[in-house]
Amino acid sequence: MDKLPIGIFDSGVGGLTVVKEIIEQLPNENIVYLGDTARIPYGTRDNKTIKGFAKELTEFINKQDVKLIVVACNTMSAVALREIESVAGNVPVVDVISPMVNYACSISEIKKLAVIGTRATISSGEYEKQIKIKSGVKVVSQSCPLFVPLVEEGLTKGKVVELIIRNYLNGITKEDTDGLILGCTHYPALAPVIKNILGKEIKIIDSGFPTALEAKKVLAKNHILNKSNVKSKYEFYVTDNTVRSFEIAQRLFDGKFPGKIKRVKLG
Amino acid sequence: MDKLPIGIFDSGVGGLTVVKEIIEQLPNENIVYLGDTARIPYGTRDNKTIKGFAKELTEFINKQDVKLIVVACNTMSAVALREIESVAGNVPVVDVISPMVNYACSISEIKKLAVIGTRATISSGEYEKQIKIKSGVKVVSQSCPLFVPLVEEGLTKGKVVELIIRNYLNGITKEDTDGLILGCTHYPALAPVIKNILGKEIKIIDSGFPTALEAKKVLAKNHILNKSNVKSKYEFYVTDNTVRSFEIAQRLFDGKFPGKIKRVKLG
Repeated sequence: MDKLPIGIFDSGVGGLTVVKEIIEQLPNENIVYLGDTARIPYGTRDNKTIKGFAKELTEFINKQDVKLIVVACNTMSAVALREIESVAGNVPVVDVISPMVNYACSISEIKKLAVIGTRATISSGEYEKQIKIKSGVKVVSQSCPLFVPLVEEGLTKGKVVELIIRNYLNGITKEDTDGLILGCTHYPALAPVIKNILGKEIKIIDSGFPTALEAKKVLAKNHILNKSNVKSKYEFYVTDNTVRSFEIAQRLFDGKFPGKIKRVKLG
Repeated sequence: MDKLPIGIFDSGVGGLTVVKEIIEQLPNENIVYLGDTARIPYGTRDNKTIKGFAKELTEFINKQDVKLIVVACNTMSAVALREIESVAGNVPVVDVISPMVNYACSISEIKKLAVIGTRATISSGEYEKQIKIKSGVKVVSQSCPLFVPLVEEGLTKGKVVELIIRNYLNGITKEDTDGLILGCTHYPALAPVIKNILGKEIKIIDSGFPTALEAKKVLAKNHILNKSNVKSKYEFYVTDNTVRSFEIAQRLFDGKFPGKIKRVKLG
């Protein structure tokens, strides 16, 4: 059981930012990853569509005989977690929102949070709801529907990118915000420009670190941490072109992406 | 036979710009429309994915017992026309590219053309190929991958939109260009800003008029024009949220969109 891989999925390759952190924190674990690049973006679709897609991804990942499922996508975590858990059956599921909320609320300097994400994530109100339950931290939120297309196009710096980011983050100032949650696994690619615009005073928090930490906890609790010293196996699947995904993956892993990417047809 | 509807499909609601012109030129015709809003955009996917999606749309439209199929999408016209025709069987198929090329090359003032479109459309080289066969008109092309997300987000004016458009159309000047082909059915929504940037000297050509004209020709040639005076029936289907599609449709039809929109699941 402990040798089985962790199954991780996302609407595209954004979830590889979570994979990177999981490899860092759990270097012994085998991983199977699925990115639905043929149907990205999810965050502009409605809940019914997102739930339907999420079920299909979970079915694929579940068939790979995994010991843990990580939903490396804020949109699906916000909208389709119940559906994913129901397809997952006995396999434990870790999402990205609840670890991010726990982490952000545990930082004592943070009294006021801002959350940015896709339209579906922000409309769900999931971050605000969970933050309110956890703590007295104040929270405002803003959807940024053009951020995913920007990152998918490899547009992560320059004048146009800066103007689009400024436009969305207009209302987020250091007077009102101690921390900014990047509520979408694509957004870390825009973090350098976001940091430049918002200034050093606002702490930027992304899904990778807290989600990997939570995955580690759940594996430990279930006594299924992989303690073997055999070199870990990584399998990566996407539903559209593998070449473009591999380029983005290489950029993200500083040229050291630990595997090949295969194409798969769902359903 | 002549009472059967025309089947029209697109990756989203952009194809309604073609529907509008078909209603204008062929007011007696019944119409069935399908927009694959759950999987838009197509133009950033690879050819294999686009061909697969195009076949599914054609299968749905063909089941509605149509007398003519109009592919109201440049990306599918560029990449998947053969696949669509093969699924369509005996039903004639009109695409958007060949009517646009014929029309643009027939305007005597046009000696130099620029074409803008999605990445898949521009990479296919289909416009350039067809223009070269038809005429001695010179042609340059430019893909504009952010235009579809902009229009889908309802962002069709303002500073950000202007900067993005300027960025893509940087190389298109009145010295080098007599006419600009909007090689994507979403782009007419950006035409006012594009006109402002390029100036009056460059003629802007979109798919609606020439495609409707071609549909009319094909119906006439096959003796299947609807001559009945009964009020035309319009059916509209999308694969994602109907409310948002209806809003975009109403904007496009100046508040007089001639029907309801239903949701359908493909496959």
